[in-house]
This record gives sequence, structure tokens and C-alpha cells, in this order.
Amino acid sequence: VPQLTFTQSFTASLYDIDAAGVMFFAHYFRHAHDVYEAFMAGIDQGLPELIRQQRLLPLVHSEADFLRPVRHGDQLLVELQLERIGNSSFTVRYRFINAADEEVARLKSTHVLLNPEGGSPMNLPEALRLRLTEYAV
Amino acid sequence: VPQLTFTQSFTASLYDIDAAGVMFFAHYFRHAHDVYEAFMAGIDQGLPELIRQQRLLPLVHSEADFLRPVRHGDQLLVELQLERIGNSSFTVRYRFINAADEEVARLKSTHVLLNPEGGSPMNLPEALRLRLTEYAV
Amino acid sequence: VPQLTFTQSFTASLYDIDAAGVMFFAHYFRHAHDVYEAFMAGIDQGLPELIRQQRLLPLVHSEADFLRPVRHGDQLLVELQLERIGNSSFTVRYRFINAADEEVARLKSTHVLLNPEGGSPMNLPEALRLRLTEYAV
Amino acid sequence: VPQLTFTQSFTASLYDIDAAGVMFFAHYFRHAHDVYEAFMAGIDQGLPELIRQQRLLPLVHSEADFLRPVRHGDQLLVELQLERIGNSSFTVRYRFINAADEEVARLKSTHVLLNPEGGSPMNLPEALRLRLTEYAV
Repeated sequence: VPQLTFTQSFTASLYDIDAAGVMFFAHYFRHAHDVYEAFMAGIDQGLPELIRQQRLLPLVHSEADFLRPVRHGDQLLVELQLERIGNSSFTVRYRFINAADEEVARLKSTHVLLNPEGGSPMNLPEALRLRLTEYAV
Repeated sequence: VPQLTFTQSFTASLYDIDAAGVMFFAHYFRHAHDVYEAFMAGIDQGLPELIRQQRLLPLVHSEADFLRPVRHGDQLLVELQLERIGNSSFTVRYRFINAADEEVARLKSTHVLLNPEGGSPMNLPEALRLRLTEYAV
Repeated sequence: VPQLTFTQSFTASLYDIDAAGVMFFAHYFRHAHDVYEAFMAGIDQGLPELIRQQRLLPLVHSEADFLRPVRHGDQLLVELQLERIGNSSFTVRYRFINAADEEVARLKSTHVLLNPEGGSPMNLPEALRLRLTEYAV
Repeated sequence: VPQLTFTQSFTASLYDIDAAGVMFFAHYFRHAHDVYEAFMAGIDQGLPELIRQQRLLPLVHSEADFLRPVRHGDQLLVELQLERIGNSSFTVRYRFINAADEEVARLKSTHVLLNPEGGSPMNLPEALRLRLTEYAV
């Protein structure tokens, strides 16, 4: 099984930075979701199509450790891997790395697949599970 | 006809402020929309119910003059009035006033009522027009 | 010692809701921070003054459990309490409660007080510790 | 003189879309600013360095026409050109184009260069003026 890492870069923008001069903590979650959307578009049909089919994958948990401050103009690489793949849920791990190759933040988000009727958890389709497994830690 | 003004206050938050130390311009539009939502909830059924009924009022134009910088912790009063009420559209005016009673920004947004079938403009309901007229400049 | 809870309410706005029809997860962190800013303004000098004095309290960890979907127009009460008060750090807990009195989300954020010179952790001032303790779980 | 256009693309994300199912109007201004930051990084020292030098270029006016709805997953190209270059200010024009080559929105923002001492407008440096002129409409 290959051990892949999905990566995407961004530059901390004027409005990512708050009145204390560093990236506002909630914006890390927003940037992580941008990476997740790009990842899902590559391995599956992408979120817009999943939502159209009512195959919703809401977050049930998310957490972050903020290790170093991020300043305006900092270039960050985000590395996405799958930390856990369960029957109906999976946990995505994001590492934010700066230009000095330091880890500035580490995030995790757990998504669960809901049944369109009723909203209870349902098993991940086998095709999706296989693609996710390629990116397992 | 009464000449009413709808008002709402907020304090410029940590994340309203950007890396240049002042409120990021796009956040004025966000705050103006918060005032618009509260206004519409008071004079009509509110946006959630309008959207449920597919009576959509999208913005077709918006503009702003930024007159003075806003800093972290500044307390701002937003005054909403109707600048123009047309057959199928209306223009809302927002004045942002700081604690020294100075106007810090002036915004305008034009909304148009769309027909659920087809999406072409349709006449404003008479009840809505009457309520809007109370807040006309 | 009194057992206080700081509370603040908000209504889920048009732009809190995402393409899946529910409140976007990063916006919970933003709303929690609004409550934190109001809380700190009440018990201490408030964040703008703390930042001016270079007494920074950055977040080092944050996490959330999302228990129920939030829809456009939902009225939410946020209850803030202190889960832990350490020497140089404290953990704030936020419970988001809907109009049916159901807990829809639970967040935690850990802040650490940094020394203006050097940025290493420093002891919380006794006055701040005492005020925080009033809101301890 | 060349007639250049600076372009950048993005995909409308889950959280760009609001409860009405279309891109929230304030997010167009945010995306336009992302393009502006990338443009300024290419022709000048970039905003982080300008802010460090206290050479601030705040917005004094911004406006937008919203021509067509944008949905989740839509791929948009933003074209940036200079509509006007004055002594101390300039107006940037942004055209948002969808995958069907339709213009979905048109924005304008006017920036003014402020003197670090006093904050009054000052003349644009000749080097900046020359680079801006290459992108004049």
C-alpha cells in the first residue's frame, strides 16, 4: 500500500492576521477545510456532488495544537493524511509547515458519513475507503 | 409617515482587525448584513422563512466609503435606512458611527426580489413595501 | 466561592450556514471567541488593552465536539466557564445550547500568558486568577 | 506600453456559499483582496513589507455588481486591471469569470497611499506608478 501525503500551500493573508499580529486560530480550521475540499475532489466526486446526492460527511470533532505564531505573508504548506479510518467515520490530520520547515500547527477533524434517510451513520463505500487508505498515516 | 432608523451596535473584535491594524474592509459588509438580517426579522418574516419560501432577495450591487480607520475594541453603532424603494428592488443605506459620534463608513446594498420560477424580478409585496417605507430616508 | 457562568446569545446568520445547509464548523470557534472577548472585557481590562500592554494570551489548543446541526436563524446561547486554571494557562469551556435547550456543540480553548520579553510562559496575575476562579466549573 | 491583466483562479468553497445556496456577497471582496495581495507581491514588495515600512494603502472606496449566482464548486477566474491611477490613489478593477466564460461579478476598489507621519495622502512612488501602468485598462 502506498503511503501518500496530499499537500497544498497558501500564504497568510492580510485578513488571516488579527489585532494581536498573528493568524487568528479559527482561520487554521478554514484553511484546513480548503485542503480537505481539494483532497476530496481528487479522490472522490468532490463535496459539491456528495452534497447533491445527500451523502453528507459532517464533522463531529475537530481539534488543533498551535505551536508557533504565523505572521502576515508567511508561506505555509499543509500536509493532509488519514489518521484513522473506521466503519462510518474517518479522522483527517493536517500539519501546517512554515518556510523554515517548522511545524506551526497540527489539526485533526473527524467526519462521519450519514444516511440520507434518518441521518444515522452508515458504512463508508468501499471505493472511498480504498482511496482514503492510500493516505493513511 | 414616520421616519424611522433601525440601529444595532457591535464592538470591533480581535479578528475584525487585519495585519495593518484596522478593520478589514470586507468585514464592514459582513457587519452590515448582520444589521440587515435583524432588520428583516423585525419588519417581515426574516430571511430564514423567506429562503424557505424561495422568496429570494439577492444583492445585485453593494458599495462602501471608508472614512476613518476602526481599531480593535471600537464600539460602533450602525444606522440602517432605506435609500430607495423601487418596484422590485430596494437600496439599504448603512452608516457606521463610532463612540466619538464620527461617521467611519457608509455602505449601500441593493436587493432585488426574484420570482421563484425563472428567477426574474417580481414586484415587492405591498406589506413589505409599506414596512420598508417607514424607514425611508 | 460563587459558581458563575458567563452567557451570550446569537442567531445563526445567512453566512454562518454553508453549502451543506448547516453552520460551518470553523464559525463555532469564531462565535466562541466573541463570547471570550466579551467575558474578558468584563473581568479584566479587555483584549485591546492587554494587547496594547503586550500581555498576550494566545491559544495553544482548541477542540470541539459538534453534536447537532445548526440551521439558519437558530438562536443559540453560549455558556462560558473555566474548566482549568493553571499557573500560566487556563482552559475555557463553551457550551452552545439551542432554543430547545439541547447542547449542539461543546468547545474548549487553552490560553497561555506570555512574557512580553522572550515570549515564554509567565504566571497569571493574581487579580486575573481570582476573577477566572469565580467562573470555574 | 503593454496592456497586461493579472489573473488568479479559485473554486467556490463549502463556506463561500450561504444559506441561500449562493456565494455570500462579502466573500467576493475577500477573494478580490487575495488577488490584490498576489498582484502586489509580484509588482512591488508585497503588502507585508509595505506595512512594515508603514507605507499603508488603505481602501477608501469599494463597490461590486453581482451579475450571476455562484454555486459550490464553481471555478472562477479573477482578472485584475487598473482602472485609474491618480497622484496618490489608484482604482483596481476585478472581473470574476465562471467556467462558461460568463462574467459573474465586477468589483472596484480605490486605495490611497498615506504618509507615515500624519496619515495624509502622498504621491505614489514612481516605480510603483510605472508597474501599475502596465496593468492599466
